[in-house]
Amino acid sequence: MRVVITGASGFVGHGLARFLCSHPGALGRPMSKLVLADLTPGETGQGRQGWDGAEWHCGDLTDAAYLNSLLKEPVDCFFHLASVPGLAAERKPELGWSVNLLGSIALMERLARQGREGGRVPRVVFASSIAVYGVLGPGVVNEDCVPRPIISYGAHKLMTEILLADLSRRGEIDARSLRLPGIVARPVSASRHGSAFMSLLFHKAAAREGYICPVSRDATAWWMSLTTCVANLVLAAKLDAISMPPSRLWQLPVLHASVGDIVATLADHLGPESTSGFRFVPDVAIENLFGRFPNLSAPGAMAAGFIRDPDPSALVTNVLKG
Amino acid sequence: MRVVITGASGFVGHGLARFLCSHPGALGRPMSKLVLADLTPGETGQGRQGWDGAEWHCGDLTDAAYLNSLLKEPVDCFFHLASVPGLAAERKPELGWSVNLLGSIALMERLARQGREGGRVPRVVFASSIAVYGVLGPGVVNEDCVPRPIISYGAHKLMTEILLADLSRRGEIDARSLRLPGIVARPVSASRHGSAFMSLLFHKAAAREGYICPVSRDATAWWMSLTTCVANLVLAAKLDAISMPPSRLWQLPVLHASVGDIVATLADHLGPESTSGFRFVPDVAIENLFGRFPNLSAPGAMAAGFIRDPDPSALVTNVLKG
Repeated sequence: MRVVITGASGFVGHGLARFLCSHPGALGRPMSKLVLADLTPGETGQGRQGWDGAEWHCGDLTDAAYLNSLLKEPVDCFFHLASVPGLAAERKPELGWSVNLLGSIALMERLARQGREGGRVPRVVFASSIAVYGVLGPGVVNEDCVPRPIISYGAHKLMTEILLADLSRRGEIDARSLRLPGIVARPVSASRHGSAFMSLLFHKAAAREGYICPVSRDATAWWMSLTTCVANLVLAAKLDAISMPPSRLWQLPVLHASVGDIVATLADHLGPESTSGFRFVPDVAIENLFGRFPNLSAPGAMAAGFIRDPDPSALVTNVLKG
Repeated sequence: MRVVITGASGFVGHGLARFLCSHPGALGRPMSKLVLADLTPGETGQGRQGWDGAEWHCGDLTDAAYLNSLLKEPVDCFFHLASVPGLAAERKPELGWSVNLLGSIALMERLARQGREGGRVPRVVFASSIAVYGVLGPGVVNEDCVPRPIISYGAHKLMTEILLADLSRRGEIDARSLRLPGIVARPVSASRHGSAFMSLLFHKAAAREGYICPVSRDATAWWMSLTTCVANLVLAAKLDAISMPPSRLWQLPVLHASVGDIVATLADHLGPESTSGFRFVPDVAIENLFGRFPNLSAPGAMAAGFIRDPDPSALVTNVLKG
């Protein structure tokens, strides 16, 4: 089985690659090749494959020649994680447009062509995002909530979800989109996500540094450790097509917790001095975008086997051991 | 004010063009130019502008050079009605992909560029479709129903809606999308819509011809006369941006009626012999796609001033006088 990961030098992509290299049978069938795709291997990726079948194939997804070379040999399982993060896409709309919208469309067209013409329908796992929702009300969110994105990143993710469902209906790809919550703890350098504060809480506590947090203690967010996220991506790739909803879409279950809860749990695990230098100076825009998440009910995804970090202590444990 | 209509030789486009030519002040400000865009003027369009400021500018929206020439002079109000209809797009997926998806994206990118660079933000009225919904349950549909398209035409319309909302949020265009129901009575030749039976009932009754209808008498659909549809498109162009929801989206109010209701009303208006040769031989696929529409509640759109044909008799009257 030939497997590709885009965004393989990113936080989630690297975590997934590392897991698959140490568990080459995790997808159900043995991997023959794991292709790691990104602009560059990045710091995390250098010489770190750790499994003979893994190889880097670097380039720009918006370059048709690169796409063709990446997909020259048929792919069985394609993890599409690459994107320009939310804040970066707001600052450079043309880059977000080109990568997150046109790049994803071109990629899916190319994968669909393999399914149409080669008769080998690729399984596609797409990392969508809770950024599709936009402003949520205070009521419990369920899997039938109408998404109303308020950043281009979320709009482009939502458009890609719809495209994947349609190409799957036509039998040209076999897609499954996962709406990911805030995955922690991203490297500090990866702060081009507006939700970077979620990860910085962990890094600053571990380093025992002060931190001016741009949301209040009461801000509530949807959290997930990288370990849990990777387990969910792997599960998504293994689910039978027959068990997929026509939308091909799963809102992952999440840990719904306040910033105050997470900070208190970090203090429990790392000692009170680890967070004693934290101050909370809410930025209204960030608080509105990332700090007002209500409860989430995702019984469909849980019945399908998707998991969450069950409580703040489990989240912190998973992050610190990661 | 410079106005453009794409799909101007289509049924709705021609109706809108005819209305604007006879009411050049209908959009609130006087039109200086009405550009009619389509592949060709078609039978309906030949020599029919009827107003000195109207002119044809024919070409293929998927051709970047044509787009540039169409938008060489800044446009104030852009009606985007052109599309490959639903059944045609299912039969020729590459054509639907190219026109309905990539063509719409390229067009909106070009209009957004005018807003960004020229400082003249174009108002865009987009003809979306109830095809975005897919299979609706028996419950009343409201404006917050989650769309789950099951044909590519609907998926591409939905993706375009999301794009328009995002470009409007960024202030690059000023869009309003209308989800149109089945507009009657389309010309017989325009039967590449799966909902063609809705129009054929009118034509066959008027011609006193027999008709084998591919849905049952009990099939329920959402109907609108061309007259009413044109009034709604014009209203959409006139609404203040300030009164628009962030989704930039309106589900138009509709007449919810069964095929049997419409046939009985046609018999009332045209005499019993007009429909005596009708037979009903349901095609399961068409009945499921187009004959299972539940009640619709659209209080938001009605409060904004959008209208519907109030009952089957009004619909039939509007169609027959059209």
